[in-house]
Amino acid sequence: MITDGSAGRVNRQITLASRPKGLPAVSNFKMVESPIPSLAVGDVLVRTTFVSVDPYLRPAMNNSALLPTGACVPADAVGRVVTSRHALFRPGEFVQGMFGWQDYAAAPWYVLRKLDPRHAPVSTALGILGASGLTAYFGLFETARAVAAETVVVSAAAGAVGSAAAQLAKLAGCRVIGLAGSDDKVRYLIDELGLDAAFNYKGEHEWQPQLGAVSPFGIDVYFDNVGGRVSDIIFPYLNTGARVAVCGQISEYNRESPSAGPRWLNVILEKRAKVQGFMVTDFAARYAEALHNLSTWLRAGWLTYRETIEDGLENAPRAFIGMLEGKNIGKQLVKVE
Amino acid sequence: MITDGSAGRVNRQITLASRPKGLPAVSNFKMVESPIPSLAVGDVLVRTTFVSVDPYLRPAMNNSALLPTGACVPADAVGRVVTSRHALFRPGEFVQGMFGWQDYAAAPWYVLRKLDPRHAPVSTALGILGASGLTAYFGLFETARAVAAETVVVSAAAGAVGSAAAQLAKLAGCRVIGLAGSDDKVRYLIDELGLDAAFNYKGEHEWQPQLGAVSPFGIDVYFDNVGGRVSDIIFPYLNTGARVAVCGQISEYNRESPSAGPRWLNVILEKRAKVQGFMVTDFAARYAEALHNLSTWLRAGWLTYRETIEDGLENAPRAFIGMLEGKNIGKQLVKVE
Repeated sequence: MITDGSAGRVNRQITLASRPKGLPAVSNFKMVESPIPSLAVGDVLVRTTFVSVDPYLRPAMNNSALLPTGACVPADAVGRVVTSRHALFRPGEFVQGMFGWQDYAAAPWYVLRKLDPRHAPVSTALGILGASGLTAYFGLFETARAVAAETVVVSAAAGAVGSAAAQLAKLAGCRVIGLAGSDDKVRYLIDELGLDAAFNYKGEHEWQPQLGAVSPFGIDVYFDNVGGRVSDIIFPYLNTGARVAVCGQISEYNRESPSAGPRWLNVILEKRAKVQGFMVTDFAARYAEALHNLSTWLRAGWLTYRETIEDGLENAPRAFIGMLEGKNIGKQLVKVE
Repeated sequence: MITDGSAGRVNRQITLASRPKGLPAVSNFKMVESPIPSLAVGDVLVRTTFVSVDPYLRPAMNNSALLPTGACVPADAVGRVVTSRHALFRPGEFVQGMFGWQDYAAAPWYVLRKLDPRHAPVSTALGILGASGLTAYFGLFETARAVAAETVVVSAAAGAVGSAAAQLAKLAGCRVIGLAGSDDKVRYLIDELGLDAAFNYKGEHEWQPQLGAVSPFGIDVYFDNVGGRVSDIIFPYLNTGARVAVCGQISEYNRESPSAGPRWLNVILEKRAKVQGFMVTDFAARYAEALHNLSTWLRAGWLTYRETIEDGLENAPRAFIGMLEGKNIGKQLVKVE
């Protein structure tokens, strides 16, 4: 018999109880208890430490194929190995994987990424050195192909992906304008991330009139996490040959059908612009290269990050809803243990 | 003194008299007479034979930098050399260039393309073997990167560019659905071009309900010449990884500001689609390659074309307005001489 720290314990899971309409409520989720999963040969049992809370979960909740009701909410997570049936993984080691919103997960060894806590705090494997940083990296450098001296606008620029994209654009020598939903976030963008300009698009003041002044050469790259009215304001400023990397559309996720706004195809034509949606997994073959760079730049102090941490697995739904409302700065995490 | 056929003649020019609001009227244009232009060393005097009538002129008419009032309307044209001050060009030879809506043009030799009327009718240098064919070629194969077995939708498919794009897509082994504005055009698309399906989007019947049935595998490429409501109907059918080549937006050209419709950025994100505007001149470095292929395919009978020819330079404005209303099938030309 294998003895491990899980003996006699149960696995708490946050499941989707019902499909949200509009902004999710805590009542759309339900905590259930289940046995600790058993391991096949090659499997590893992980006790989750941090689980990730990501905007893309909201559209996934409309899709019964991606997220059936009653199923544990899927999520990127880090945790410690409890029991291992693979020689390369030992109890106590930190690993990252899609463990979901639960206390314990069993995963085959080959989907795990080993983390070295001496290298960087393990929570960064969910943020700047994980999906958020990778999304920013490939969206900015591949989908948008931002180059030095170009003007880059990032929406939701104080979020996990946005703050990484904005910093990477600065690092690449771009002029960077951040859009965020509070005055606090705007201060963060200017004072801590050193952006060239930032606007609060939920504030009282119209920001469109100032946009031209802070982007006198027009906008070459728009890294969009928000969509809707915010993007409507950006599109008329796009330069010839502009690239729009469509990374997220948080303003649209709670809707049942597309909102209405100006049609931009004629601007896309006139400017010969490229508007392209992407997912970080489109670039999976190049994660190692990007993580090497991101790690180097983080240790050199060229990149910084923030985390907003909610305590307790039971509070994951609340953290998720708060993130959809824009309450977080940087990466929203839930500390499970 | 150089003697030529122009001695004692005047040059008639169609100029932009005033900027149109909405659909242009004949009164927005004015015919003026001017002297036959004189030639510098290296210049060639051309008597225009056919002038081209292109949708893109409409947005250009809103732009005083592109088209000042009082100036001759710029246009692609073919003509015969009257007088030449360059050894490579001889009187009587056919050439193509941006001669404008006028009887005579002087042009430096290096902007001229020599045409061989034994190779193909010279009017094709404005259509299938000219800007229209090149636009279709690069839009389909470069911007949209259509490949065999994909489903391609072409709007304004009976127009000069659309009919070329639709045929090239068939040639490439794609399933092709054409959208056009009359039942006659739909018959042309099915009977002559052999498309897999075609719809009249100005007809009485709703075509959206049938779109799913004729594109059971979804839509991989949308070659858009129209925009507006037509494009709104296509976007929900885009497949993951779909490409939208934004070639023209004729439904928008008469507007002062963008029309309103559903916002599609969230679909672009979900489908990781690419929506890209382009102009044929983006690919100028590769015209020779494309013209070689288009000529070969035309002579092999794999491509066909139609022309709608208006007689008389004075009727160029009427032909232009008719084209904006969708009266032409294939390339709209004006026969000047």
